[in-house]
Amino acid sequence: MIDVGILDRNAPAPLHEQLAHGIRTAVLAGRVRGGDAVPSSRALAADLGLARGTVVAAYEILAGEGYLVTRPGGGTAVAEVARAQLPSRPAIPALSAPQRPVPVVDLRPGRPGTAGVVDAAWRSAWRRASTVDVGADVGDVRGDPALRAAIAGHLGRTRGLDIGPDDVIVTAGTSDAMLLTLLALPPRGGRLRVGVENPGYPRVRRLLARLGAQAVPITVRPATGLDLDVVEDLDDLDAVIVTPHHHYPLGSRLDAAARSRLLLWAERTATVVIEDDYDSEFPHGRVPLPPLHLLAPAGVVLIGSVSKVLSPALRCGWIVATGTLRARIVDARADLDAPVSSTLQRALALYVAEGALARHTARRRRDYRHRRRLLLEAFSAVDDLTLTATDGGLHAVVLLEHAEPAAEDEVVAALAADGIMVAPLSGYTVPRTVVDLPPGVVFGYAEPTIPVLMDAVARIVTVAGARARRHPLPGASAAPLDPDTV
Amino acid sequence: MIDVGILDRNAPAPLHEQLAHGIRTAVLAGRVRGGDAVPSSRALAADLGLARGTVVAAYEILAGEGYLVTRPGGGTAVAEVARAQLPSRPAIPALSAPQRPVPVVDLRPGRPGTAGVVDAAWRSAWRRASTVDVGADVGDVRGDPALRAAIAGHLGRTRGLDIGPDDVIVTAGTSDAMLLTLLALPPRGGRLRVGVENPGYPRVRRLLARLGAQAVPITVRPATGLDLDVVEDLDDLDAVIVTPHHHYPLGSRLDAAARSRLLLWAERTATVVIEDDYDSEFPHGRVPLPPLHLLAPAGVVLIGSVSKVLSPALRCGWIVATGTLRARIVDARADLDAPVSSTLQRALALYVAEGALARHTARRRRDYRHRRRLLLEAFSAVDDLTLTATDGGLHAVVLLEHAEPAAEDEVVAALAADGIMVAPLSGYTVPRTVVDLPPGVVFGYAEPTIPVLMDAVARIVTVAGARARRHPLPGASAAPLDPDTV
Repeated sequence: MIDVGILDRNAPAPLHEQLAHGIRTAVLAGRVRGGDAVPSSRALAADLGLARGTVVAAYEILAGEGYLVTRPGGGTAVAEVARAQLPSRPAIPALSAPQRPVPVVDLRPGRPGTAGVVDAAWRSAWRRASTVDVGADVGDVRGDPALRAAIAGHLGRTRGLDIGPDDVIVTAGTSDAMLLTLLALPPRGGRLRVGVENPGYPRVRRLLARLGAQAVPITVRPATGLDLDVVEDLDDLDAVIVTPHHHYPLGSRLDAAARSRLLLWAERTATVVIEDDYDSEFPHGRVPLPPLHLLAPAGVVLIGSVSKVLSPALRCGWIVATGTLRARIVDARADLDAPVSSTLQRALALYVAEGALARHTARRRRDYRHRRRLLLEAFSAVDDLTLTATDGGLHAVVLLEHAEPAAEDEVVAALAADGIMVAPLSGYTVPRTVVDLPPGVVFGYAEPTIPVLMDAVARIVTVAGARARRHPLPGASAAPLDPDTV
Repeated sequence: MIDVGILDRNAPAPLHEQLAHGIRTAVLAGRVRGGDAVPSSRALAADLGLARGTVVAAYEILAGEGYLVTRPGGGTAVAEVARAQLPSRPAIPALSAPQRPVPVVDLRPGRPGTAGVVDAAWRSAWRRASTVDVGADVGDVRGDPALRAAIAGHLGRTRGLDIGPDDVIVTAGTSDAMLLTLLALPPRGGRLRVGVENPGYPRVRRLLARLGAQAVPITVRPATGLDLDVVEDLDDLDAVIVTPHHHYPLGSRLDAAARSRLLLWAERTATVVIEDDYDSEFPHGRVPLPPLHLLAPAGVVLIGSVSKVLSPALRCGWIVATGTLRARIVDARADLDAPVSSTLQRALALYVAEGALARHTARRRRDYRHRRRLLLEAFSAVDDLTLTATDGGLHAVVLLEHAEPAAEDEVVAALAADGIMVAPLSGYTVPRTVVDLPPGVVFGYAEPTIPVLMDAVARIVTVAGARARRHPLPGASAAPLDPDTV
């Protein structure tokens, strides 16, 4: 019989959740192993003095999370959650004796869970989209009118935007939207100057460099977010790119006062605000604020995509803009040509308009919140590690606030040796800038099955926790370091 | 009984084609009308002293072309080819009395026939592609390996290229490929300088302007093609964009000697050649030459797409490049991110690898060649009009060689009043350049049904023929013009 710990009828969590938690803990602790049969719901209910429905509900939660599997011959068993089951990384040529390849858990951020995407609604949308005539031309360069209407409706429900199809321009994802918006802006100097968050999204900086534009870094701090004192000293930017609802990657949010300051500054200096509204579908534990675009439609270009809610592999997103900005962006789109296939646009229009995207988002939201709770629990025991960015989305940041900078690379390398891929926090900072940021790693928690994720998270806690504790505390950091500890 | 003209058993064309031609002519000339029943194949065969199979074959040709339709109650009738059947253009608000909207035949170039695209192979490819997991990331920024392999195989068979998947980069069509290639080139001066054909593809010039690059026009003449004397005087270009196999829009082809000169010049001056290999699937009446990329892989970037062979609405194409150029383009792609959805790439990979693209291309080629023959016939009777660009592809150019420049706008406007949209030839020339080009119009002949097309072509012949004859001949052009004729 499985030891499921103590069940408490007076606890706030319902009994089936407590039971699921107990079994999950037993699996993760190795007290039951992959392949072991679990008792029938009837037998376990009798043993524990529970209603059978309580056990069934707990088993359903665990099956949904990937801890339990139904066996071909009937009956339920613990899933094989050992690392050997994970996908292998590309084979490395064996130099001497053949090596067992190290399996990989890719926890680099930006990878959503896609297990539930392909369902009946999805297949039906694609089937209908691929059955009508493809058409002899690209059509409206702004995108399929039905998709633009569906996106406008979606953003009305999820982000409170009061917009119509004419306010929406379909893009091939966020990078395409950034490219298009940047090429639509007439530089006031000879060269486009664009404020970027530091740390911030590295691809945007590479895109700016590729276009010959200048990226002007603006400091973001883990606790206080975008430094508006720095912003207010700038008066020669053509645009600024921000992630106000959930800073990427640190997770801080611009509060109402900061939003006002940013928008007043943008209006005073005639700076276009580009609002990257990524992962806004997944607020956890705090009420979302409305997008900047709602407060200042004429000055803010909102960029979003289905990359976090469905998959980046779909390559579809949107720009919301109005007035002169919209006209300029549409002109740029006409010069560059529209990039998204009519079949995809038609399929997505059906999928969104018929409510399938909303249903999928709700399922994902429940799953991600559950994962987030497990993460917080896993990190709560370690004093020297700060887990942040968990108020929304599908990634988290581990800060090693008392460690030396070298600890970051050590943690990334040690995890890589275990087949766990995470991103070093310093990779998000603009090169050759001084940012007051502790070492840290960024990891996504959306994609792997929960057992694989929690196994990897346990390694992150161990590896990062060891590095965090090896170094002197802040007060002692002026003292000469023991070379053995660096 | 239909007057089908004289059938000649000794003529080179088989009897069923002669019969089909005779009936087609009767329909186009208005001697039989839409809705009229045609005799049964048995009755017509008896009347004309032909085998019944000959009449059946002729009827099948005409049904395939849209001249004949099967009636619900059985029997065959002449199709309604009157303009009233055509799609209406967007309603124009009536200012006084309600107006009958003018129907539109869109003959602007670049619109392929898409009637046969959606077949069992197409639907099956999409069904399978939309049933597998979408994946949590964009994957290889160069594109789906299966699609790159399928494209490499396709280009091996159709263009003689000996390439593998690693030589191919998937793009969202030709404009995306141009953008990517241009952003991959390091300008040798402060600003990218790119040679463009004049006349040539207008969107490329707009793209260059959008990127802050300088377009350097190179004259192309209807008869002799790209002016290599001009090319050889240029030594400070970063790249040159050419359509060597079928100049866009004039249709001239770079012969083997010109190709050598171009490639020697490019090598001497270290200029990258961007080869726009559009519509190469449809050579008519001449053997295609191999692409420039085959002759000088290291210096030539080949760009192609499915826009002409399937539809521009699919937004999928490719770049073929090798060596340093390839590495630079892949770097640029990584900065810009990949734009094509994994579902489309998977569907297209199946469609191409299973031979469906080749079968569709063969069907389209037969259809387009037939349309081209009809065009040549329609224009053969008019001495003052030159029909050109008909050696390949799916558009043609009518040159009014003896007319004044104003004739071009008059022809376009007169056709537009009849609901026929064509493109003025001067729209392809670089603004503020002097090009020795007669007035003309460019029109596509791939998309409408053949009856609609030939009806519109008859109007083009009439309208353009009238303008061509109204003006003095070249020898007399120095004399003062009669204002009534301008």
